[in-house]
Amino acid sequence: MENLKLLELTNFTYTDDIRLVDLALMLSDFEDDEIKKVCDALEDQYLARVLEEADQKVQKKIMYSIDSDRALRVFSFMSKDDIVDVLDVINTGLRKELINKMKTGDKKLITDLLGYKDDSAGGIMTTEYIALYRRFTVSQAIEKIKEIAPKTEHIETIYVMNNNKKIVGTVSLRDLLVADHSEALEDLMNPNFMYVDPDLDQEEVAKIVSKYDLNAIPVINSQKVMLGIITVDDIVDVIIEEQTEDILKMGGVDKEETLDSTILQSVRRRLPWLLVNLATAFLASFTIKAFEGIIAQVVALSATMTIIAGMGGNAGSQTVSIIIRSLAMGKVKFNEVKKLIFKEVALGLINGAAVGVITGIIVSIMYGNVYLGLIIFLAMIGNLIISGFFGLIIPIILEKLHIDPAISSSIFLTTATDVLGFFLFLGLASLFLPKLI
Amino acid sequence: MENLKLLELTNFTYTDDIRLVDLALMLSDFEDDEIKKVCDALEDQYLARVLEEADQKVQKKIMYSIDSDRALRVFSFMSKDDIVDVLDVINTGLRKELINKMKTGDKKLITDLLGYKDDSAGGIMTTEYIALYRRFTVSQAIEKIKEIAPKTEHIETIYVMNNNKKIVGTVSLRDLLVADHSEALEDLMNPNFMYVDPDLDQEEVAKIVSKYDLNAIPVINSQKVMLGIITVDDIVDVIIEEQTEDILKMGGVDKEETLDSTILQSVRRRLPWLLVNLATAFLASFTIKAFEGIIAQVVALSATMTIIAGMGGNAGSQTVSIIIRSLAMGKVKFNEVKKLIFKEVALGLINGAAVGVITGIIVSIMYGNVYLGLIIFLAMIGNLIISGFFGLIIPIILEKLHIDPAISSSIFLTTATDVLGFFLFLGLASLFLPKLI
Repeated sequence: MENLKLLELTNFTYTDDIRLVDLALMLSDFEDDEIKKVCDALEDQYLARVLEEADQKVQKKIMYSIDSDRALRVFSFMSKDDIVDVLDVINTGLRKELINKMKTGDKKLITDLLGYKDDSAGGIMTTEYIALYRRFTVSQAIEKIKEIAPKTEHIETIYVMNNNKKIVGTVSLRDLLVADHSEALEDLMNPNFMYVDPDLDQEEVAKIVSKYDLNAIPVINSQKVMLGIITVDDIVDVIIEEQTEDILKMGGVDKEETLDSTILQSVRRRLPWLLVNLATAFLASFTIKAFEGIIAQVVALSATMTIIAGMGGNAGSQTVSIIIRSLAMGKVKFNEVKKLIFKEVALGLINGAAVGVITGIIVSIMYGNVYLGLIIFLAMIGNLIISGFFGLIIPIILEKLHIDPAISSSIFLTTATDVLGFFLFLGLASLFLPKLI
Repeated sequence: MENLKLLELTNFTYTDDIRLVDLALMLSDFEDDEIKKVCDALEDQYLARVLEEADQKVQKKIMYSIDSDRALRVFSFMSKDDIVDVLDVINTGLRKELINKMKTGDKKLITDLLGYKDDSAGGIMTTEYIALYRRFTVSQAIEKIKEIAPKTEHIETIYVMNNNKKIVGTVSLRDLLVADHSEALEDLMNPNFMYVDPDLDQEEVAKIVSKYDLNAIPVINSQKVMLGIITVDDIVDVIIEEQTEDILKMGGVDKEETLDSTILQSVRRRLPWLLVNLATAFLASFTIKAFEGIIAQVVALSATMTIIAGMGGNAGSQTVSIIIRSLAMGKVKFNEVKKLIFKEVALGLINGAAVGVITGIIVSIMYGNVYLGLIIFLAMIGNLIISGFFGLIIPIILEKLHIDPAISSSIFLTTATDVLGFFLFLGLASLFLPKLI
């Protein structure tokens, strides 16, 4: 009950939007019975706002602490896409019960929306928007907008349709306000507007919206019939979600994992990745094993070889992160790959020489053997060239093969820099063996 | 001239926004003389749009290929924040010349805007917005909006000020459209609105806008005087920029580096980071060197120790990426750190045991020595616990010290997992030495 006291539930006057969003986020820390008390205390329209903004766990708890009639009353204050998000987190039984109790029109809309993939344009679109016939005059349009405005999310763009309900253009509310009242929408409209297909991946939608600075983009099927719109605030959520995914994937973590995941969930999500890495680690280990005879004679190799492999990994990560990011932003031109390879190889040569000279001198002094220093120097250059080359082409090849480069680039890169790095260094050591003993 | 042919410059009819944005992005591949031709062919208002959307290099080229009178004409079609962005990329001489030629009012505004840091709220805000007096009626307000709308970027929110020009509330255009025409703005307005200080970091602004699903947020100084607004499409750019930075920093790359950086620029940006890593690599190497006597006797240690260190690094990256992302999204509660430590240590124990058993069995068979397998098993558990513990606390400590955890977590983590991993494994090997020979 600690949390409830903080809210001072006795004078519960949460009517402004800012506090409702905050409340929704606070509920993550609440006990089940506290959440129930909050639901009971809030009016339907405010609970609707909290439900929209809460995370999935809390949405589930709210839905199980109110009965289905109240749920439907709360839904009446929510847009269809938000209702679908909530229906997605509850169990099939309750979902069916709620859908069956809906009005016929809503039932069809909601069922259609549930059919789209979560991360597709159809899955994130809202079905509340303003579409008017092309022959409407400006004053007719403004009357209609006044009527629809309170029920819709986005009023800045008016979609213009022909008699077959196909979308033929858009008019901005701004242009409408300043236009002559007797003009027809078809004379004002912009016929060149961007739109997306309902099956398009949300990441692609986000790219278009951010590239063209759009406030909203319509979702239109192959018959040019409008299904919904995606507004820029939903795009903000998509961008944040996709980038969280990229950062986690680059670190070898499943996108579903959060700080709240249980230990068992985390084990299930992280262990497979560790096992893939283990295979890589063994490849490197086998490479070293092949040179055990040399290492037995020059034990100094064993303490120095990790420097070569490690620096290759570091330099490769630099290349990989810049390429992955450029790929994600559509900035890699595939006809320029040769130029990029040349650059990365040159960088490997220069950085390798710089790092190699320092390492070589320190090692020469430490072990009193100039040849060991020379081998380190050469191997460092070699491995930094390898890391630049593979750091560049691995993500590009994966992208071409439609495999997400964020998730598996590092594993292939480490294999290359470890195996080839150890091979190069220990191979050079074999050649110079008489000078090293 | 290849590129120009693509544009069919002879019938140059780029008047729609979509094609202008595309053109702006295409110009990156154009030669200087081609860019000049495009500038000459475009009308002022369309060149303004291209200038806004082009990248900094192209902006510079455009500014140097038109004279200052034309530049000012083009500026007249741009919002002040976009003008400031352009002034930021040209040299001081031209900047002063242009500012001096501006009208007095604009001169003051632009100079003020140039004073804010690029990545602060003041640096990204636009000064075009609609602010009306509180006593205005709805019909007066609508008249005024019709007048201002064509010149302003964001018309969905009307800011309401008192007689001292201080902002006291906001009204949405939607509410205005459906309201009674004789009502006063002060009766319609929402007095609880979010706003930011001009010095606030853009990342914090983005967090507020995305958290509360805002379309725009006003920038207000300590005297409650409004300085500008930040719209959600600028926030989209901020989020993309900040997340690019995070991904690059986690990979050890300077945020300024792009695919277009010259080799020398890239060397200057990547080499310092490699040198920091080199210091770490030497620490690991010294640890191994301390055990050279043992390795000389049991050379198998040298091929197997890299598995322990490598797996520690991999497991630690998993923890680091999830914590860094949670920190960035404000989801780490510092009073729960103990619980998180417990979880990561438990995960290290479980994953370490799983990976350790497999590794131990393979190594036992490969080298025909059960004790070597047992040591691997124990060291793997130990190093995965170490990686979980340090992977968690390093980013948290850095965050507490106000050091960006994305940039330096990996370096400290690798130091911990390499040095402690080698020490643990080779230390255990010393204890079991008689059983290993």
